[in-house]
Amino acid sequence: MEYQSITPEGVEYLKKITSPDRVFFGEEIEYDYYHDEMPDFGIHAPDVVVQALTTQEVSEVMFYAYKHRIPVTPRGAGTGLSGGAVAVYGGILLSLEKMNQILEWDLDTMTVVVEPGVLVMELADAALERGVFYPPEPGEKTASIGGNVMTNAGGMKAVGYGVTRNYVVSMECVLPNGSVVRFGSNVAKNTSGYDIKDLIIGSEGTLCIATKLRMRLIPKPLVSYTLLVPYNSLESCVGTVPQFINSTLNPTAIEYMPKSLLDDAARYLNKIMPHRTADSYLILMFDGATVEDVERRCDMAASICLKNGAEDVFLCNTDERKEAVWSVRGAALEALKASTTDMDECDIVVPRNRIADFSRFADEKMKEYEIRISIQGHAGDGNMHIQLMRDNMEKHLFEDRCPRLMRDLYIKAKEMGGQVSGEHGIGHARVKALKEHLGSEVIGIFQGIKQVFDERTILNPGKVIQ
Amino acid sequence: MEYQSITPEGVEYLKKITSPDRVFFGEEIEYDYYHDEMPDFGIHAPDVVVQALTTQEVSEVMFYAYKHRIPVTPRGAGTGLSGGAVAVYGGILLSLEKMNQILEWDLDTMTVVVEPGVLVMELADAALERGVFYPPEPGEKTASIGGNVMTNAGGMKAVGYGVTRNYVVSMECVLPNGSVVRFGSNVAKNTSGYDIKDLIIGSEGTLCIATKLRMRLIPKPLVSYTLLVPYNSLESCVGTVPQFINSTLNPTAIEYMPKSLLDDAARYLNKIMPHRTADSYLILMFDGATVEDVERRCDMAASICLKNGAEDVFLCNTDERKEAVWSVRGAALEALKASTTDMDECDIVVPRNRIADFSRFADEKMKEYEIRISIQGHAGDGNMHIQLMRDNMEKHLFEDRCPRLMRDLYIKAKEMGGQVSGEHGIGHARVKALKEHLGSEVIGIFQGIKQVFDERTILNPGKVIQ
Repeated sequence: MEYQSITPEGVEYLKKITSPDRVFFGEEIEYDYYHDEMPDFGIHAPDVVVQALTTQEVSEVMFYAYKHRIPVTPRGAGTGLSGGAVAVYGGILLSLEKMNQILEWDLDTMTVVVEPGVLVMELADAALERGVFYPPEPGEKTASIGGNVMTNAGGMKAVGYGVTRNYVVSMECVLPNGSVVRFGSNVAKNTSGYDIKDLIIGSEGTLCIATKLRMRLIPKPLVSYTLLVPYNSLESCVGTVPQFINSTLNPTAIEYMPKSLLDDAARYLNKIMPHRTADSYLILMFDGATVEDVERRCDMAASICLKNGAEDVFLCNTDERKEAVWSVRGAALEALKASTTDMDECDIVVPRNRIADFSRFADEKMKEYEIRISIQGHAGDGNMHIQLMRDNMEKHLFEDRCPRLMRDLYIKAKEMGGQVSGEHGIGHARVKALKEHLGSEVIGIFQGIKQVFDERTILNPGKVIQ
Repeated sequence: MEYQSITPEGVEYLKKITSPDRVFFGEEIEYDYYHDEMPDFGIHAPDVVVQALTTQEVSEVMFYAYKHRIPVTPRGAGTGLSGGAVAVYGGILLSLEKMNQILEWDLDTMTVVVEPGVLVMELADAALERGVFYPPEPGEKTASIGGNVMTNAGGMKAVGYGVTRNYVVSMECVLPNGSVVRFGSNVAKNTSGYDIKDLIIGSEGTLCIATKLRMRLIPKPLVSYTLLVPYNSLESCVGTVPQFINSTLNPTAIEYMPKSLLDDAARYLNKIMPHRTADSYLILMFDGATVEDVERRCDMAASICLKNGAEDVFLCNTDERKEAVWSVRGAALEALKASTTDMDECDIVVPRNRIADFSRFADEKMKEYEIRISIQGHAGDGNMHIQLMRDNMEKHLFEDRCPRLMRDLYIKAKEMGGQVSGEHGIGHARVKALKEHLGSEVIGIFQGIKQVFDERTILNPGKVIQ
């Protein structure tokens, strides 16, 4: 791809159509803009950072970039884990972090209109203050809602409430040529032409830039209990999961953590856990409208666990206990990062009854390549976060073995009917894996669709497809 | 568009790649294949009907049509209401009705693999026999699952369970050039490239032909109660709806019917109703896991209704009473058809709190154009089925007024943030309305996407876009 470089006049023009104090060039650019939360996947300096404040500004920046063929990388809070918001071709890094207003609450239709830079935790808190609920809860709560939509983020509660896709009602977008269009509207169902909204969700900013999002809200669950369930083997731990999927117990979350990780994370946060010596843990959450209903479902869940080999079941129904368990679960990635030198990561998803098989396979690979692997994640979704830790291995050895081990994992996932990424996305880190996984026919359709939106290939080039 | 005609040699070739007893030419074609359930939208004779039996056959038929540029109209059970399965350009009508096998139950992952010709009611019944539940329940239960996916069918229970889109896990499809590809796989969440699966859902057979579908199942609700709620005005009737949306009562269905229609449909079916003299009726359904839970929610729903002007609340908790109410609701369209000469129909969806406003507007238009209008539908979704009845009006008058009245309705829907179709789709009947509604920029994206899949424009031409 032949791109034009940004000129000093270009920088001046960008300042004119936005504001001088929101355009940063060369040395003025903070290092944070060079990477996301997985700097291991590559550090790339943008030529210029523009912090847009309005749809109009986004549109004018895109029109300029379109005319001059300058690559544009849209970016929310920069908390991604696959390099999706990193400017691998330089050019303009278009930050939406300052477009962070909640614009309209419409509780009659249970929707809220937000700008893309609103943080997920801000939206969730603001909803609770109004007595309603925004359920998607990715591990990284400082992620932006725009980023969550563009990666179709999942998170802990996807088992019960679904992923971000299920909460996007409509969107205003800026196309690569600067046009402003709307996809969908505030309706509960829609069969009026092709579903572009769902095509854009999860497209990682390669098709257009969402500048306004109408998100769905649901009534606030009145009661929420958590169960911490120790098992003496991974098999019986994750083997319990299908029993919940095929039941009317409607769990909100089904997570699993190996002892080592639970221990590390609890130590990392200095938290007291109800239990920490078992081989593996299931963490279950049940939300509901009444104490009686949630207690009934927890009781039934506990007997399912005990029948399937659980050592015990710890009920966490106080805020303090729940907070301890979920903050430890949430700190897994940070604890792992703190425990090693370099790290590689994948986000494979397999059918929900294949987690034990896949984990066993990963364990064998750990021995074969002599690389420490941590697996934890969303047992109820078949979605596993697998970290490969360098620890004290020589860097060149790790860099040689890591891609080969990853490839083995992706091939196994494909054999099992899985997918490359459950919720972190492809970014630039998994482009090759995706291509191998899907094959040329599907990738060809992707490329055709990319052309329809972005015929000059200026929007987030190098991501998802190449 | 310049298409080739099918030749006698072509017919022989189609017989060779399928079977002589599944290819029908000219006079051999049954009249049913000329139309769907809204023959008012146009009667079109295909040149040849092919009843495919396998993916391989579909692929070979498409490859032949691609090579010779012959239009192909895919068709399921032919129960659509917008002409989507009607061969407006002649050519090959490719019927999938004989691809009607349920191929695989996988209750560990709560999914089932079906061929597209399986009827929705067959899938629903077979699921219940296995103790699981396939929730989407469109008014027309003899629709095929392929047709339901291609129109993203909604139906009565979409308020509680969502639309067909929420139940499609993955699909095998034949592209217009005959290639067989798979979109998605049996995973609970996925961010691995563009979401082609959701793009195809609701595309009305204009992008590719689904030949296998993996559908999601859920645990069977153990208890289901229905409430019939009479009101003395439409305003208070549909005005109650937002109270349910913003509550933890989780209704399965929220329907409304005017007295006249309830009366007509009850008479048409010869059913005894608990009540039939009020101006308007809400029909509510509550599914759940225990009698206590469902009774609690019904009690709370009843007091909400009574506080909002309901005359009374009738609990239907016996099979007989429930069947009476829901069969009367289900017979609305048939009763209307039986009550008039010709009919036009639309399927507008508006924000869920705008139904009363829209109904009032339609009432005014009824007076202005002197055309009898019936409105009923999915109050909980903001989705209304609006029928315009000719009755004894002179045909040319009806044909003159009807499109103008329809246009007024679509313009009003757009003003309110609504959409052209909630669940029936665009077919060929609403192409113009859709174009006016969405504007050239979005339609341009549709056309680009159509080109990516079908660059020879042979698959279901004249539908959705032109």
